Amino acid sequence: MAPVSSGSGKSLSELFMQSALEAINDAGVGSLDGVYVGNMMSGFLQHQEHLGALMATALGQEGVPTYKVEGACASGGVAVNAGVKSVLSGLEDIVLVAGVEKMSGYSTPEVTTGLMMAEDRLRVGATGITFVGLNAMIARAYMHKYKIPHEAIAQFPVLCHKNALDNPKAQFHKKISVDDVLNSPLVADPLRLFDCSGIGDGSAALVLAPLDVANKYTDTPVKVAASAVASDALSLYQRPDVTVFEASRKASERAYAIAHKKPEDVNVLEVHDAFSVLGVMALEDLGFARKGEGSALVKDGVCERDGRLPTNTFGGLKARGHPVGTSGVYQVAEVALQLTNRAEKCQVTSPSVGLSQSVGGIGGTIAVHILERTK
Amino acid sequence: MAPVSSGSGKSLSELFMQSALEAINDAGVGSLDGVYVGNMMSGFLQHQEHLGALMATALGQEGVPTYKVEGACASGGVAVNAGVKSVLSGLEDIVLVAGVEKMSGYSTPEVTTGLMMAEDRLRVGATGITFVGLNAMIARAYMHKYKIPHEAIAQFPVLCHKNALDNPKAQFHKKISVDDVLNSPLVADPLRLFDCSGIGDGSAALVLAPLDVANKYTDTPVKVAASAVASDALSLYQRPDVTVFEASRKASERAYAIAHKKPEDVNVLEVHDAFSVLGVMALEDLGFARKGEGSALVKDGVCERDGRLPTNTFGGLKARGHPVGTSGVYQVAEVALQLTNRAEKCQVTSPSVGLSQSVGGIGGTIAVHILERTK
Repeated sequence: MAPVSSGSGKSLSELFMQSALEAINDAGVGSLDGVYVGNMMSGFLQHQEHLGALMATALGQEGVPTYKVEGACASGGVAVNAGVKSVLSGLEDIVLVAGVEKMSGYSTPEVTTGLMMAEDRLRVGATGITFVGLNAMIARAYMHKYKIPHEAIAQFPVLCHKNALDNPKAQFHKKISVDDVLNSPLVADPLRLFDCSGIGDGSAALVLAPLDVANKYTDTPVKVAASAVASDALSLYQRPDVTVFEASRKASERAYAIAHKKPEDVNVLEVHDAFSVLGVMALEDLGFARKGEGSALVKDGVCERDGRLPTNTFGGLKARGHPVGTSGVYQVAEVALQLTNRAEKCQVTSPSVGLSQSVGGIGGTIAVHILERTK
Repeated sequence: MAPVSSGSGKSLSELFMQSALEAINDAGVGSLDGVYVGNMMSGFLQHQEHLGALMATALGQEGVPTYKVEGACASGGVAVNAGVKSVLSGLEDIVLVAGVEKMSGYSTPEVTTGLMMAEDRLRVGATGITFVGLNAMIARAYMHKYKIPHEAIAQFPVLCHKNALDNPKAQFHKKISVDDVLNSPLVADPLRLFDCSGIGDGSAALVLAPLDVANKYTDTPVKVAASAVASDALSLYQRPDVTVFEASRKASERAYAIAHKKPEDVNVLEVHDAFSVLGVMALEDLGFARKGEGSALVKDGVCERDGRLPTNTFGGLKARGHPVGTSGVYQVAEVALQLTNRAEKCQVTSPSVGLSQSVGGIGGTIAVHILERTK
């Protein structure tokens, strides 16, 4: 993983190389059989596409099958899914999946327009609402329906900022309180600055292989027990209830079935808390709490690193950072480090099953991965 | 397939629906297990990403796994590869793959900048050279190295324009001669207007399934005998010989091996003739002629619909049209129609094996598919 930064000054290729070389060296593999790149905004912000061949060339691995995979803010998550399928297909053995995104160095209107590419430009973008605005509508509806005060959902970013203090690659190293969240500048009512993830550059990468191949390179491979993607009607106006991400339910139900696991088997969790309310909703939609009861888990300490369900143990999107097309890969990498006891100061005690959830748009695409330690 | 048009007036969703509904109705399938969308330029031109969920929603198939796949002008070809892997992975049975691209309605500088997203923006785009300019350098080097006159490579677009006369969905219905090509306006020396594919909107779609599932829906499924993607060093300056597309060689060699076929088994061929010289080079790099001898095949009538190797039977990129992220899907759809004797006026006599080649950038990514009739 590259450090997340809002002023990296690095190009897309340079960001990619930071994580790709680290992943390849860590895995101890030589040549690759495929390279898959998750990214959302490079066409719009950098006027650069063809990231597959660009990055494979940068790596000196030109020749391999390669392409870019995009699913808005879940681009990293769906890229992992594409990589898993490449291995499962039998066509490729050793596959690199990397997310890369460069969002800093652009004006706020540019980045805001870029983020709204996740929504239907002609029917929703045309109204002028921003991506934060859409999430604010979700937050308002959620708080109203379940009678949850802002204080309750504000606990989520507080948890993430605390965890990020121990992650040297996190974008923000700043302890915050619930009061800090509630008193931070308003972005889109009711969401305030500390309810929202920031703008950053970053890159994260993984090496995937069939288990028998992985066993040749390491004594402690992490098993991808399930990789599932689901979608939902793209826009809020098309959904009966905006306080649920149906794609989160569908993808996680499918993942639990494939992995033969239940929510109670999960002992490390990375969820897509681009906005505070999404972190709380994720706990519910993934099966860890009933609707309206997600924030109670946070309040009761269940999501702390020493709790029953350690969540966003490296700081999550809020504090590790959210370079949009990368977050899904950061999450899987973080879970893998946890399961191999290499999470250093972020380590939780001997987790055996981890789950990550990556959200595209306002829940239009959701990727869920379940990882399992092998020994 | 939607008709290719430079003035469709349609949105991305409308273009997508034209081909997706036709493919679904033709296949006779109800619900889908996955939707994969090939597209290159929507982020830059339409400020729209998240095409997977956008299109699945438009289809009323929200819920399914879905994402966008991008590999520059080979986006359609690599999307087919992603769809094939989704089926091979065992995770999904009935999968829709669609290419969609909208290029009309924008200024020439906008589209020119968009096409250069296929190249390294920082090292090559920054010089000011256009995408046609890069291909002109290839044409000049090719003509010089193999002592091939422009007249010889100009035969390729002449063939394509002739074939497109019989394709009601082709962008251009205009018979041209070698003299017409040589006397058309200069675009980038030596390439002239009729050496170059045009700007257009379009969409093409396929339904993929495991053979046993496909057999429930049709008596004449077409077998995907191989799907292979290869890459090359992205930029011309990084390659020892710009008159060969190594990725074309690699992808086709792999595809022949997987399909247990040789070039001489192929009896219908769709190649990526975005520029006349690329059509000629494809004949060589895919193994149908030695280097420098591709144009002789065209001259000798081998590539005619009644020849030994019918090529670009619906008009190819030059005359059927080249909405960049779609062409790889049009090609596979056209080969499938040929193999099931449904190509109407474009039909060649009883082909049993077809090959398509989709090129991203100036050969940085190449997808090759080999299809086979099943009865």
